[in-house]
Amino acid sequence: MRETHGGDWAGYQFEYGTLPLDFSASVSPLGLPEGVRRAAATALDNSHRYPDPECRALVRALSERYGVPGRRIVCGNGAADLIYRLALALRPKRALVPVPTFSEYGAALETAGCQVERFPLNEKEDFVLTPTLLSRVTPETGLLFLCQPNNPTGRTVSPALLADILAACAETGTVLAADECFADLLDEPNRYSLTGRLGDSPNLVVIRAFTKQYAMAGLRLGYALCGSEELAESLRRSGPPWAVSAVAQAAGLAALEERDYLEELRSLIRRERPRLAAGLAALGCRVVPGEANFLLFRHRDTGLGEKLRRRGILLRECGDFPGLAPGWYRAAVRRKEENETLLRTLEEVLADG
Amino acid sequence: MRETHGGDWAGYQFEYGTLPLDFSASVSPLGLPEGVRRAAATALDNSHRYPDPECRALVRALSERYGVPGRRIVCGNGAADLIYRLALALRPKRALVPVPTFSEYGAALETAGCQVERFPLNEKEDFVLTPTLLSRVTPETGLLFLCQPNNPTGRTVSPALLADILAACAETGTVLAADECFADLLDEPNRYSLTGRLGDSPNLVVIRAFTKQYAMAGLRLGYALCGSEELAESLRRSGPPWAVSAVAQAAGLAALEERDYLEELRSLIRRERPRLAAGLAALGCRVVPGEANFLLFRHRDTGLGEKLRRRGILLRECGDFPGLAPGWYRAAVRRKEENETLLRTLEEVLADG
Repeated sequence: MRETHGGDWAGYQFEYGTLPLDFSASVSPLGLPEGVRRAAATALDNSHRYPDPECRALVRALSERYGVPGRRIVCGNGAADLIYRLALALRPKRALVPVPTFSEYGAALETAGCQVERFPLNEKEDFVLTPTLLSRVTPETGLLFLCQPNNPTGRTVSPALLADILAACAETGTVLAADECFADLLDEPNRYSLTGRLGDSPNLVVIRAFTKQYAMAGLRLGYALCGSEELAESLRRSGPPWAVSAVAQAAGLAALEERDYLEELRSLIRRERPRLAAGLAALGCRVVPGEANFLLFRHRDTGLGEKLRRRGILLRECGDFPGLAPGWYRAAVRRKEENETLLRTLEEVLADG
Repeated sequence: MRETHGGDWAGYQFEYGTLPLDFSASVSPLGLPEGVRRAAATALDNSHRYPDPECRALVRALSERYGVPGRRIVCGNGAADLIYRLALALRPKRALVPVPTFSEYGAALETAGCQVERFPLNEKEDFVLTPTLLSRVTPETGLLFLCQPNNPTGRTVSPALLADILAACAETGTVLAADECFADLLDEPNRYSLTGRLGDSPNLVVIRAFTKQYAMAGLRLGYALCGSEELAESLRRSGPPWAVSAVAQAAGLAALEERDYLEELRSLIRRERPRLAAGLAALGCRVVPGEANFLLFRHRDTGLGEKLRRRGILLRECGDFPGLAPGWYRAAVRRKEENETLLRTLEEVLADG
């Protein structure tokens, strides 16, 4: 079977007939912004036509937002589409992936026939990336996937180490793929993003998505900002045309106007994450000090996922991540009442033994 | 640059500021069925969640429709997604493609690092596939793409030859990919489909899409019916999860109920195709006797595409298809008044010289 992921509410619905309270997908709990919903509904009027394969309007808006030329921007059917395209475009013999991390890097690299070299992040160091990684970036590396902040740990790479990694990649001819799908949900988004380095880093690709921060997971929209036109063109060629639906293009364009929504979301996460972390710790969980809109934690009870599931709550069980084991879980940071429901239910479950 | 395709209304809109009358994409002129539109709009309510990566409800409905077990059905982000997945899943050293045909078979195979062997269809034979193809199917072939009816010629492969091809593929261990994206728009859809052979052909994959027949091009939804679970599983693994948006899944499920729509569409095409063909012939075009919802024709004026474009009409210029040359065009069969507009405008253009 393929990699498992959070967010499989449909599997739950098939089993129980109702929808769960879903902490397993790290999606904004504020729901689809109203302006995005309106734009998507309007786009249905035009959906008898093929979508614009070049996503011209959306690319133009992203170009203005990031100051990156449009010819270096590629939109995709979610970030996962761009991860696959990148692996297929480069087909490196070897690629480096710090683990635990998002499993689709490895899956895409293996589909491309590439050997995946895994760099273990250390639990004792709370899974923070250390400069030891630098010595592993060699002229044979080809491609390095870096998830910032990292999923499922929620940890960031410091700006200083990030600069060193970028330099090591430039020196060795390694393409650096920075997956910043959760970066806008950090307390200080700009501090950790590499988008500012795209002008002087031809080997850099920054992958981002609308999925998490605008609760657009069902619509599928991601984009890659590339350090060179060549990289962008190779991404375009490495997958089918019309990858982005007309609905997703319209929704993305509208989402870029939703600045208040994003501020509200960031402030909710900033407020609720420490409470949720404290609550989990009080229940005997070992909580990794995550910085994003989700928390990774461990409990000696390896059956918590199933026990909560029976009570209508989904956690992401993380036992299948390379570098983790059963007993590790990831929970999204949601609204106050929802987080309290999670903690209360967890308390009941633990009391039941 | 990547392959060009019809349906680039967005490029026209950027240039002229208005929408063209689009004969370049062979999509149903009846527009999105109302039931599909309603289902898609309703699905927006749930689009903050990830789409069901397994498309359970849609797969169940397709399984009932075709009598193929759900585990042998894979949904994708349009048929093009499935074409890429198939090429990547099999990575054959060599693959056989009769040309002219849909350009994404070659593009996908080249992305997968595969050598594409092109079997030329003969203009003198009106591009009909002949039994000569059989001798080209060898144990080295790996994969054969067959577009039925063929795009852009609109020609079908006879049931007898189809059976021989299937047998040759079985004998040589070649996977036969039958692209039936336009098959439901033939006058006798069942006569030419290989869906009835999925039970006894483990090497067969039938690719279909909702795109053309339900005017859902902007929503992106295709599916592959596989002769074996192994083939289906390899398609699932050869691309990103969540390839099909929640909106497309809901739209597809609703589309399967639209039997009257499809009848109306088929009868419109049956009525209008001969008129359009006769009109084009009367204007000095050499019209290939196409059997689907589009017609391939040639005119000595190689500039017709641009001349019609300036008058608000898009044709598919076919000079970039291997096996064709400038002066070949493809036009969708649309509503009576629209086809008449095309013929009248073409007459004016030709009178202008």
